[in-house]
Amino acid sequence: MRITVINPNTSRAMTAKIAAAARGVAGPDVEIVAVCPESGPAAIESHTDEAFAAVAVIDLIERDLAHGGSDGYVLACFGDPGLDAARELVDVPVVGIAEAAMHVAALTGRSFAVVTTLSRTLGRAEDLLVRYGMTSACVSLAGTGIPVLELEDTTSAAFDVIAEECERAVREDRADSIVLGCAGMADLCHALGARVGVPVVDGVAAAVGLVAGMARMGVGTSKRDEYATPPRRGQLVG
Amino acid sequence: MRITVINPNTSRAMTAKIAAAARGVAGPDVEIVAVCPESGPAAIESHTDEAFAAVAVIDLIERDLAHGGSDGYVLACFGDPGLDAARELVDVPVVGIAEAAMHVAALTGRSFAVVTTLSRTLGRAEDLLVRYGMTSACVSLAGTGIPVLELEDTTSAAFDVIAEECERAVREDRADSIVLGCAGMADLCHALGARVGVPVVDGVAAAVGLVAGMARMGVGTSKRDEYATPPRRGQLVG
Amino acid sequence: MRITVINPNTSRAMTAKIAAAARGVAGPDVEIVAVCPESGPAAIESHTDEAFAAVAVIDLIERDLAHGGSDGYVLACFGDPGLDAARELVDVPVVGIAEAAMHVAALTGRSFAVVTTLSRTLGRAEDLLVRYGMTSACVSLAGTGIPVLELEDTTSAAFDVIAEECERAVREDRADSIVLGCAGMADLCHALGARVGVPVVDGVAAAVGLVAGMARMGVGTSKRDEYATPPRRGQLVG
Amino acid sequence: MRITVINPNTSRAMTAKIAAAARGVAGPDVEIVAVCPESGPAAIESHTDEAFAAVAVIDLIERDLAHGGSDGYVLACFGDPGLDAARELVDVPVVGIAEAAMHVAALTGRSFAVVTTLSRTLGRAEDLLVRYGMTSACVSLAGTGIPVLELEDTTSAAFDVIAEECERAVREDRADSIVLGCAGMADLCHALGARVGVPVVDGVAAAVGLVAGMARMGVGTSKRDEYATPPRRGQLVG
Amino acid sequence: MRITVINPNTSRAMTAKIAAAARGVAGPDVEIVAVCPESGPAAIESHTDEAFAAVAVIDLIERDLAHGGSDGYVLACFGDPGLDAARELVDVPVVGIAEAAMHVAALTGRSFAVVTTLSRTLGRAEDLLVRYGMTSACVSLAGTGIPVLELEDTTSAAFDVIAEECERAVREDRADSIVLGCAGMADLCHALGARVGVPVVDGVAAAVGLVAGMARMGVGTSKRDEYATPPRRGQLVG
Amino acid sequence: MRITVINPNTSRAMTAKIAAAARGVAGPDVEIVAVCPESGPAAIESHTDEAFAAVAVIDLIERDLAHGGSDGYVLACFGDPGLDAARELVDVPVVGIAEAAMHVAALTGRSFAVVTTLSRTLGRAEDLLVRYGMTSACVSLAGTGIPVLELEDTTSAAFDVIAEECERAVREDRADSIVLGCAGMADLCHALGARVGVPVVDGVAAAVGLVAGMARMGVGTSKRDEYATPPRRGQLVG
Repeated sequence: MRITVINPNTSRAMTAKIAAAARGVAGPDVEIVAVCPESGPAAIESHTDEAFAAVAVIDLIERDLAHGGSDGYVLACFGDPGLDAARELVDVPVVGIAEAAMHVAALTGRSFAVVTTLSRTLGRAEDLLVRYGMTSACVSLAGTGIPVLELEDTTSAAFDVIAEECERAVREDRADSIVLGCAGMADLCHALGARVGVPVVDGVAAAVGLVAGMARMGVGTSKRDEYATPPRRGQLVG
Repeated sequence: MRITVINPNTSRAMTAKIAAAARGVAGPDVEIVAVCPESGPAAIESHTDEAFAAVAVIDLIERDLAHGGSDGYVLACFGDPGLDAARELVDVPVVGIAEAAMHVAALTGRSFAVVTTLSRTLGRAEDLLVRYGMTSACVSLAGTGIPVLELEDTTSAAFDVIAEECERAVREDRADSIVLGCAGMADLCHALGARVGVPVVDGVAAAVGLVAGMARMGVGTSKRDEYATPPRRGQLVG
Repeated sequence: MRITVINPNTSRAMTAKIAAAARGVAGPDVEIVAVCPESGPAAIESHTDEAFAAVAVIDLIERDLAHGGSDGYVLACFGDPGLDAARELVDVPVVGIAEAAMHVAALTGRSFAVVTTLSRTLGRAEDLLVRYGMTSACVSLAGTGIPVLELEDTTSAAFDVIAEECERAVREDRADSIVLGCAGMADLCHALGARVGVPVVDGVAAAVGLVAGMARMGVGTSKRDEYATPPRRGQLVG
Repeated sequence: MRITVINPNTSRAMTAKIAAAARGVAGPDVEIVAVCPESGPAAIESHTDEAFAAVAVIDLIERDLAHGGSDGYVLACFGDPGLDAARELVDVPVVGIAEAAMHVAALTGRSFAVVTTLSRTLGRAEDLLVRYGMTSACVSLAGTGIPVLELEDTTSAAFDVIAEECERAVREDRADSIVLGCAGMADLCHALGARVGVPVVDGVAAAVGLVAGMARMGVGTSKRDEYATPPRRGQLVG
Repeated sequence: MRITVINPNTSRAMTAKIAAAARGVAGPDVEIVAVCPESGPAAIESHTDEAFAAVAVIDLIERDLAHGGSDGYVLACFGDPGLDAARELVDVPVVGIAEAAMHVAALTGRSFAVVTTLSRTLGRAEDLLVRYGMTSACVSLAGTGIPVLELEDTTSAAFDVIAEECERAVREDRADSIVLGCAGMADLCHALGARVGVPVVDGVAAAVGLVAGMARMGVGTSKRDEYATPPRRGQLVG
Repeated sequence: MRITVINPNTSRAMTAKIAAAARGVAGPDVEIVAVCPESGPAAIESHTDEAFAAVAVIDLIERDLAHGGSDGYVLACFGDPGLDAARELVDVPVVGIAEAAMHVAALTGRSFAVVTTLSRTLGRAEDLLVRYGMTSACVSLAGTGIPVLELEDTTSAAFDVIAEECERAVREDRADSIVLGCAGMADLCHALGARVGVPVVDGVAAAVGLVAGMARMGVGTSKRDEYATPPRRGQLVG
């Protein structure tokens, strides 16, 4: 089984980190291919960035389809940009990492908190909570003020800032678990879980598990109406 | 006052129709400029089309800003593609036509129905209803099966099909008013209202009224955090 | 076009203030007539006051209809008393100022806060948020403890108290904009916007813009069933 | 214990019917006093009627208070007009019949249907469902087209029309019980229950039971802020 | 009329306290029988305890039915364990004390707060709020950290701890009334009401009033489908 | 990795069918152990059955823990009986099949329909939809009238009845996918998917995939407060 993990920003360092997180939970029978676009935003930190990321996702899936396609796709950006469009293009599973992390966190208890990067992205996260039915399960959303690309520097103070916010959410907001709100936090997941003492969910790992599970069940994307192949498919990409 | 109306598809016929609808409700002190992209989807009928439309909206606003900008923007596609991104780019009002039509329809009574083109776009309309707080007000959503570009042909059977769906929604779903779910229906609005006997709301006209009203009040887009100027503004287009 | 603005309390000073706010946003082709009842509560600060205000609204609309009627009506009390009844009486637009302010504030960003007079009126404001679909958009409701009639005294400390509450809502509740919860605050709107730094929405101005826009579109109140002329119309007043 | 039951319309026949329904469930220690206004609407069938009914409720409670007051009040009109205002005026229990019927019906199973008179009143019923938290419990709302005053004629076809609508709601909407949507249906309740085969709830009887139960518990209306005595209490009533 | 009050834990002291609370509000024509199981959890403080409590409820109702049954049943544990099952077994009213307290509290104003024992039971209380349509009415849920059985000791500090939490909820959360979240608090109800100054609702008293009122109305449990006699009734109990 | 799949009814035939479904999607590194209780209901078709099933789940997990425990648990009954209690007992993942099927179905498109056995179980399914945040995603719930144990007879007409209901839900309710509402339908899943043409989700397979994925991620059940080890753990069983 081959799962293609799409990082819609251009950071190769982050793409490598995402690939490692994906491989860490993939069974021996699962091949992980991680890709990112050659041009576009270096991080997805605004609605404007998201718009370009969605087009990058479409482009990267079309390229993969031109080479035979995969058994499933993971969209490795916490805003899940391009998710609906991606589902129009294929009949295999497509799962976004926000979606995956929220669904898995919901299985660990009653409630979770989302801890993310810049507070300006919280609105998008709220929209996704509504879209995925998670408004009751999510007890808080918090930005840490850490820009996405600062997560590349593993010597930075980011870990402590994130850990303290996770601890606060558990203590004050009564969060049963934590959802990490950025693919760039994937490498911090286990250390955060050890420190915070509740399940900490990285969306990349969660999404790989969901896509692999769906592929084993023979369940993919419904092609009924909304997600059927779109009218101008393949005509729009550069 | 100058309001720029952005049609994010490439149909010049539809852009002209939209401009006429906008001018029909603009006071003598309001100048309407209607624009559309040179390339991209000819109609917005899928999530894939929407992704490209969002980038076109960003591009057209950046171009307008490079020439001094406008007093407000209308996004003239019923999926309101790129609305959040557009709000990041300016501090004047930006209103989408789905948003505008729903808010105005909510003022005509208790309930409205949305009548649109292809049923595959209903999911996007549902998302917008949630986003704008209109799930209770909207009693039904219906696709007519008419593709967007068929609306260009004013001799087609589209009017009767749309009118019958409007009448059904009033009779069976107890809709107090009708929201037209496509900018391409703007020229049918008055004839539909006359036939159906309840208010029929075209989003283009509704949005122009809202943007003009906001501009007169001195109320624009909040630049607090989420809609502040985005990190990579202007670096991604073209 | 003539828009009648109804202040349902007996304060002539407040009626004059409301008329000025309305005229400030009306185009040159819009005539504003502002009226108030001769008897009844001097301020609307309780459910009991609201009950009398609703009857006053009906009475004032009936009087206007007896003299030929208007092209639209604004109900200039933040509880929107008598709104449903008023819609039964006419087929032109009728918009309440709470309704108008909430809908317009929703277009300025993701979220707004309501800042109002006495905390005992917050329950009514909550009901209106639900009725208009604005529970998600509204991040906080706050009373300042300032009685309505104290707003008549422009030398009072009211401005500072209100401004501080607005600033708190932006800072702590992450409000993208502010809705002023009393027609008597209309004259403070621009100064508050300048001080607080986010859009501040006065319902009187918002409602005038909406009514004028709807009238230009030819969209009024649906007369289907619920808002059709009521059985005993005109028999109950005076 | 004395419970005053307020019929806010002027129909003495309906007031007598309501009194009988109230006495049918009151224990021997409960005195029922039923009152109605001398002028105002003969039936409450529109938002305009409701506005006058709310003022009548305030007036009748003030009159009762002037004579020593009661141990609790029932508002015997399905729109619960004046309920919030009435709660401002007293510290004993005040319960509306829509409220009472919905709460009791919720205890008979998972779901109920409301069967009422004119369809134009369904919007008000919807608002009350939301206000009382009953939107999930209520599976359908139906008007029968029977005007309120036609219910006075016990030889009319009203019983069959209502019974058929109740049966339809049980069969098609899977309603576990029926809420009768008009005080004028109180005398039909037992016969409807026998015919339809599920619990049929009359709000008058339900409200009397609730008020009596609350009075026995020593629980009345909270006087904290919103429902504290209003500023101009007693100054407004003719 | 005979009402059987079921305490699903094995504490005879608590059963006696519950019986006293029930008798305090029952009219002279209402006989109260209070029962508890011989084995099972001594307190219901976890989901595991709840599972055993539900089976105890079924067992105790079956035993009562074998001896002729009652006119109604009260389930005297704030998690309402076994409520749905109990409704399958009888056609008379069955009311849980959480359900009863929430419905009655909703009639005392706009909002209530729940004050309960261990915070680990708050999740169950949240589920019940949703099930009964009370999420909007409930402004806060708080655990006091007091174990259920400590309430048996009337000389403990429990009263002060509970009273302070009630006062905090009124002051900070703007609760119009208080719902006591444990049958073991029934004897504290009047003293708490006197101290806190808003209505304090004990579910045992509330449920007895509701069941008695429903029995007087002739309204019981709907036997339509979901709550009809279950397939294996009577075969499963020891 | 060992996953214990708990069928809480006593049917050994159904337990075998469930084990087969579980093994069909488990990778080679996952051992599936399927268990059922020795006494209790033969099928779970009522709230009464559910109460006994919850105790059976607790008992079977305690027995498994006494022998060293497993890496995760699947509760193989569509009502997810005992799920909250089971989570109190362990720190590894515990997933119910209704929960699993709904979460996975939500990833296949926008909407799903639940097709189940007896209509009397639909109320429980509705409660679970709310609990899991799936009320928007689920477009319809339908009972087929087929008792659980009739599913053991593979020569029955059950397949056609279920398939027709699935087809109806796709056609009329616009369901993007189907959730099978009974563990006893697991063996029909692939044939139904082939016939209906949209993803058909069996909860047993979905739950095994989720538990395995969570175990690989190192994410289990949160032990914070609500799901911490319960007070009387192990004292109540047997």
